[in-house]
Amino acid sequence: MKVSIIGATGYSGMELIRYLHNHSFVEIVSIHSQTETQEIDQVYPYLKHLLSLPLEPIDAEKIMERSELVFLALPSGISKEVAVPFVKNSFPVIDLSGDFRLQEEGLYEKWYDKDASHFPLIQGFDYGLAEYREDLSRPFIANPGCYATAAELSFAPLLQNQLLDKQSIIIDGKSGLSGAGKGLSQASHFTEANDNMSVYKMNTHQHIPEIIQQFRRWEPDLDSIQFTTSLIPVTRGIFMTAYGRLNDDRSIEQLIDLYRTTFDGKPFIRIQENGCYPTLKQIVGTNFCDIGIGLNEETNIVTLVTVIDNLGKGAAGQAIQNLNLFAGFPETEGLLQIPIYP
Amino acid sequence: MKVSIIGATGYSGMELIRYLHNHSFVEIVSIHSQTETQEIDQVYPYLKHLLSLPLEPIDAEKIMERSELVFLALPSGISKEVAVPFVKNSFPVIDLSGDFRLQEEGLYEKWYDKDASHFPLIQGFDYGLAEYREDLSRPFIANPGCYATAAELSFAPLLQNQLLDKQSIIIDGKSGLSGAGKGLSQASHFTEANDNMSVYKMNTHQHIPEIIQQFRRWEPDLDSIQFTTSLIPVTRGIFMTAYGRLNDDRSIEQLIDLYRTTFDGKPFIRIQENGCYPTLKQIVGTNFCDIGIGLNEETNIVTLVTVIDNLGKGAAGQAIQNLNLFAGFPETEGLLQIPIYP
Amino acid sequence: MKVSIIGATGYSGMELIRYLHNHSFVEIVSIHSQTETQEIDQVYPYLKHLLSLPLEPIDAEKIMERSELVFLALPSGISKEVAVPFVKNSFPVIDLSGDFRLQEEGLYEKWYDKDASHFPLIQGFDYGLAEYREDLSRPFIANPGCYATAAELSFAPLLQNQLLDKQSIIIDGKSGLSGAGKGLSQASHFTEANDNMSVYKMNTHQHIPEIIQQFRRWEPDLDSIQFTTSLIPVTRGIFMTAYGRLNDDRSIEQLIDLYRTTFDGKPFIRIQENGCYPTLKQIVGTNFCDIGIGLNEETNIVTLVTVIDNLGKGAAGQAIQNLNLFAGFPETEGLLQIPIYP
Amino acid sequence: MKVSIIGATGYSGMELIRYLHNHSFVEIVSIHSQTETQEIDQVYPYLKHLLSLPLEPIDAEKIMERSELVFLALPSGISKEVAVPFVKNSFPVIDLSGDFRLQEEGLYEKWYDKDASHFPLIQGFDYGLAEYREDLSRPFIANPGCYATAAELSFAPLLQNQLLDKQSIIIDGKSGLSGAGKGLSQASHFTEANDNMSVYKMNTHQHIPEIIQQFRRWEPDLDSIQFTTSLIPVTRGIFMTAYGRLNDDRSIEQLIDLYRTTFDGKPFIRIQENGCYPTLKQIVGTNFCDIGIGLNEETNIVTLVTVIDNLGKGAAGQAIQNLNLFAGFPETEGLLQIPIYP
Repeated sequence: MKVSIIGATGYSGMELIRYLHNHSFVEIVSIHSQTETQEIDQVYPYLKHLLSLPLEPIDAEKIMERSELVFLALPSGISKEVAVPFVKNSFPVIDLSGDFRLQEEGLYEKWYDKDASHFPLIQGFDYGLAEYREDLSRPFIANPGCYATAAELSFAPLLQNQLLDKQSIIIDGKSGLSGAGKGLSQASHFTEANDNMSVYKMNTHQHIPEIIQQFRRWEPDLDSIQFTTSLIPVTRGIFMTAYGRLNDDRSIEQLIDLYRTTFDGKPFIRIQENGCYPTLKQIVGTNFCDIGIGLNEETNIVTLVTVIDNLGKGAAGQAIQNLNLFAGFPETEGLLQIPIYP
Repeated sequence: MKVSIIGATGYSGMELIRYLHNHSFVEIVSIHSQTETQEIDQVYPYLKHLLSLPLEPIDAEKIMERSELVFLALPSGISKEVAVPFVKNSFPVIDLSGDFRLQEEGLYEKWYDKDASHFPLIQGFDYGLAEYREDLSRPFIANPGCYATAAELSFAPLLQNQLLDKQSIIIDGKSGLSGAGKGLSQASHFTEANDNMSVYKMNTHQHIPEIIQQFRRWEPDLDSIQFTTSLIPVTRGIFMTAYGRLNDDRSIEQLIDLYRTTFDGKPFIRIQENGCYPTLKQIVGTNFCDIGIGLNEETNIVTLVTVIDNLGKGAAGQAIQNLNLFAGFPETEGLLQIPIYP
Repeated sequence: MKVSIIGATGYSGMELIRYLHNHSFVEIVSIHSQTETQEIDQVYPYLKHLLSLPLEPIDAEKIMERSELVFLALPSGISKEVAVPFVKNSFPVIDLSGDFRLQEEGLYEKWYDKDASHFPLIQGFDYGLAEYREDLSRPFIANPGCYATAAELSFAPLLQNQLLDKQSIIIDGKSGLSGAGKGLSQASHFTEANDNMSVYKMNTHQHIPEIIQQFRRWEPDLDSIQFTTSLIPVTRGIFMTAYGRLNDDRSIEQLIDLYRTTFDGKPFIRIQENGCYPTLKQIVGTNFCDIGIGLNEETNIVTLVTVIDNLGKGAAGQAIQNLNLFAGFPETEGLLQIPIYP
Repeated sequence: MKVSIIGATGYSGMELIRYLHNHSFVEIVSIHSQTETQEIDQVYPYLKHLLSLPLEPIDAEKIMERSELVFLALPSGISKEVAVPFVKNSFPVIDLSGDFRLQEEGLYEKWYDKDASHFPLIQGFDYGLAEYREDLSRPFIANPGCYATAAELSFAPLLQNQLLDKQSIIIDGKSGLSGAGKGLSQASHFTEANDNMSVYKMNTHQHIPEIIQQFRRWEPDLDSIQFTTSLIPVTRGIFMTAYGRLNDDRSIEQLIDLYRTTFDGKPFIRIQENGCYPTLKQIVGTNFCDIGIGLNEETNIVTLVTVIDNLGKGAAGQAIQNLNLFAGFPETEGLLQIPIYP
C-alpha cells in the first residue's frame, strides 16, 4: 500500500515515518511540508544513512495519483483546509489534528477558538479510538488526541458497565514537552522547563469535549469531567492519574478482571498486576497504553494510572493502528519494535 | 540562641544549616552525625570557605550543656530513640521525623510498620504546622511531613469553614527525588528516574494519617482521603493538585477571597491571582507555600495547585519558622533569602 | 542462526535483545542471568506483549547444544570465567567486557586491578573494532569499549596516515549515566547527577591501554594519550571532543575528504559536513558513529567531535555488527531501525 | 551605597538583585528595563513577599541623581549605547556585556560582528577580572565573560610563571543553558536540549580574544588558543576541562602548591586537593571558582578542571565582587550565602 504524509517534519510526522519504516505492507511514496523543500535527512541529520526522501510541496492532485492514503500530521486549523480535496474525492485520509473529531456543531469553535470545518465534512469522519471503532471501512479517520486516548481507554470499562458515579470523574494529566510540538515558547525553554512542573489550560483544554463525547457513547448521562493538564520535564509521554467513585462495592480483583476482559485481544492495552502501576518510561517509543488500577476500599474511589507515548498511542502509533485496521493488515504490523531502554 | 543539629549531613540537616547561616539570632554551636566525624566541609566540599564545623557524635549531655535547643533531622524510627534524653530533661526539641506526629495510639505502628515511641512521649509533642499552632511555648515540636504540609495548608480554608463534601477529597502529589533522601535505590538511580515518572505507596503513604488527623481538627467528621504520591524527575519540590467538591455554590472570587482572608498575615503563604497557578520552580529554595485555586462551575469541584519545597516549607524551612515562633523571633527571620533563579 | 545471550538483564544485554528482535537471520534461543530466573518480561515490564523468554542459569553445555554463538554481556572480571568452556570447545563467543581486549601481558592487571584471564586465551580473541577487522572468520571476538570505539574511529584516518604530532593527542570524553550500568552509586543517584557534571578516573580509565593498543597498530611510535572521562546528565551516549596537532599544513576540506575516503563504504560512520558537528541525540538508539571535524588554522590543531551511543556502537550494536561480519550477513542487518526522536 | 540596575529582568540582572538583597552596604534604589514596566514581582512571581520594586524606563539623568553606581546587565551591542551618558559624566559603571572588554581596535568588530563603541570610551574601562585588578579606583569596569573568567583563572598561575608551551593550550568548555539567556531558540527548546549535548561556535566564540588579551598580560608571546564551547543539559554552570603542556618537569604537588600560593588570600578561588576534581553543582548559586589540577607525568600535560556559575562568578557575582573592591567594602560582602544543595 502506498501512502503519503503531509506535515512530515513535525514530531508526529517524523514518528509516522519511524513506524512505517518497519511496516511490511506500506511504502511511503511521498512526504510533504508546508515550509521545507530539502531531503528529509538534511532537515534531520539523524536520518542520514537510514532514509532519504525529498520533502515536496502539498499538491493533492499528485498525491492522489501516486498514493492510496494520506496522513495529515498538521496543526489544528490547517488540517481542515488541506483535507478538503481528498475528502471531496473520497480519497482515504487519516487526520492527526483536532479538526474532525468533534461531532457536535459549535463545539470546535468554542474549544479551539477557531472557525470549524464545514460540518458535513466533519460528520464524514470516524473517530479513530482504535480499540473501539465500529465500521473499519470508513475512509476518513479523525485520530484521537493524546490526552483523550489515555482518558478514554482508562475509563472505558467502567463507563461501558455503568459502574461510576457520573459526577465523580477527575483526570489529572501530565505531559512531556514534545506534546507542545516544535514551536518555541517560554514554557518549553529549557531553563524554564528543566526542574519544573506547571499546570496549563486548567479546565479549558481542547481535549475535554472530545473526551466527553466518547464517554457519552458509553454513558449518555455524563455531563462534565474535571480535567487538569500539566507539564513535566520529560521529552515524551503522558502520565495520567484519574479518579472516579464506584456506584457500588466491588473488589480490586473484580475490577482488574473487568479490565482484562474488556481489553482481551487488544494487543496494545496492557493491564498491570494488582498492586503494580506503570512507569512512564515503559511505554516511551511504543504504541502501548498501560493501565494500573487501584481501589481505596474506604472511599470506593478507583485510581487509574495510565501511561501512553503522546507521539505513539497518542498520535502516530494509533494512526498506523488505524491504517492497519482500515487496510486489513494485522493490527500490530509495524508497531512492535522493542523500545529503547533505559 | 544556641542550637545543635543532630543528623546534620542528611538533606534536611544541610538545609537547616543553610537557613540558619543567615539567621541573625541563632548560632549553630554543634552539629552531629551518626556516621561522619569529619569537618562538614570535607563531607560537602561545596561548603569550603563558607562554613567549617566538626561533625560530632551524638552526646545528649554535652548538647544540653552547650545548647538551648536541638533539631533532630533523623529518619523516622531513629528520632524516637535519640529524642528521649532531651524530652526527659525538658530540653527543647524540634523533630523533623514522623516519630512524634501521630497523636492516636496504634496509628504509627500501622502506617510506619515500626514500633512507636512511648505514647506519653508522643503526647508531649505539639504538631508544628506553623500557620496553625496554638500554644507556641510548647518545647517539643513535631515538624510536619512535606506532603502533609502542602495538603493541610491547601485544604485548611475549605475545611475550617465546612465548605466541602467530606467524601470528595482527592490529593494527587508529585515529589522530586530529594524527597527520598540520600539513600540509594533503584527508583532514584539516574537512568531510571530521568525522563520518567512513577507512582509509589498508592493509598499507603505514611503521611495519610497525619493529614487526616489535622483535617479532623477542622472537620471532625472526615474519615478518609484519596492520596496518590508520585516521583517526577526534578531534584526538589512538591507539586500537588488536589480536588474537593463544594457543598454549595460559590464563585471563584469568593474562594480566592476566603483563602486570602484565612492566610492574611501569614508571610509564607502566597495565594495566586485568579487564573494563575504556581510553577514548581517558583518556590524551590524557599519556605513559601504557593496556592493556586480553580473552580469548575459545572461540577462545583475546586482544584488546588499547591507547591512547596520538600526541604523548605516541607522540612527545614518550617522547622526554623517553628523555632522563630517558639523563641519569639520574627517569624520570617533567616527565611527570606531570594532563591536561585533560573 | 541461533544465538544465546549471557548477562541478558544488564543494559548491554537488553540492547542486544532489542537489536536482535529486528534481525532477519538470527534467533535468540536462550537468555541467561546470574541472578534472575523469571521471564524477561517480568523483570522488565516494558517487554510485555513484545517478548517473553525465560531467564535461565548459565550452563555452557546446554548452550553449546542449542546455540551457534554466545554473547557475553557480563562485567569485566566475570566474563573471563564464563568464557572458558566456550573457548575450550571452539564455540563462537562475542564478549562485551574488557577481559579479552588487552593483548599485552600485564596490562589488564595494571588497568583493571584484577587478575587477568589466562594469557593464551586472551590471545585467541580478535579485537572487534568492526570497521578495522582483518580476519572476519575468527570465532572469538573481544568487542571494544565504548570510549575506545569513539576514540579509535575518531583518530583512525589521521593515525593511519601519520598526520599527527604523536605527543599531541588529547581526548575529552563525556558519558551518559547508563555507561556506569545498573549498579547503584552515589554518582548515579538522581539528586547528585541531575544538573551536574563531574570528572572521574582522570588518566586512569581502563580504556586508555585499549586505545593506545589500537593507535599503535596505525602509528607504532605512539606512547601515550591524555584521556579525560566525565559524566553528563543524560541517560545514553558518549560525546567526545578530541584534539591533535597536524604535523604539516592541510586544509579542512582535505581533512574531511580524508575522513570520507577512509570510511567510504562503512555504513555506520557518518562524517559531518564542513562546519557541522554532531549532537548527542542524533545517534542515541543507533549503531552510528558521527564525526565532525574542525581545524584551527592558526594552531594546526584538529578538533574531532564524535558521538556514539555507549550501548549501541559502544556495546551491543557493534557486537551485532561483528556477528554480521562473522556470519556473513549484511553488515547492517538488524541495525537500521530509525531511532526515537525527539 | 545606592545603586541602580539596568537590564534587571535578564538572568544576570536578576542575579544581581539576588546577591544585593543580602548586601549590608548597598541599597538598590532603582531597576530599569527596556521592555517591562511592571513591579518586578509581577514579572517574576517567585519574588512575591521578598522584593517589590517598580521597573522603570532607562533615564540616565534620573539614575545619576538618585544613585551612586549603575550596573549594566544588557546584551552586547546595547550596553555600548546605554553606557555613554554615564561615562561622559564620570558616573561609575559596571558593565556585564562584552562591549568594553577588548582593548585593541578592530577586535570587537571582528569577533562580535557589530560596530564597536567609540574606542577611547572602551579604553576608559578596566577589565574586571577581580583577582587580578590593579587600579581598584577606576570607575568604569568591564566585567569579564563567563567562559573567559573560568579560562583566565585556570591558567593564571601557569602563564604568570611561564610554565607552559605557548602553543599547547586547549580549552574545552561546557555551559548550561542559562548561558544563552532568556531568548528562545531551537537549541534551548526543552525537547532539543534535554538528554542532548552539542558544540557551538567552534573556534569562533567571542570570548576567545578576551581570553587571549588577558593571557598576553601574563605571557606576551602567546598567539592563539584552541577553544571549544558546548551545551550540556543543565540550567546553570560552566564546566571547563583545559589542557596545556608544561615546558619542564614538575610534580603534581608542586603544581598544587603553585596554585595555592597564587590564590592565597583570594576568597573565591578554591583549589581542590590532589586527586580531587570539582563537580559542577558545588558552585551553582555561588561566586566560587573551583579548580582541580591533574598532571599526566608521561606527557607533562596538565589538566585543569574548573567550574564556575555562569551567572555568579561568570557574571553577577563577579560584578558585585568588583563593586566591593571599588567601594572598599569587604571583598566577600553579599556573596557568602550557602547555596541550595542538592
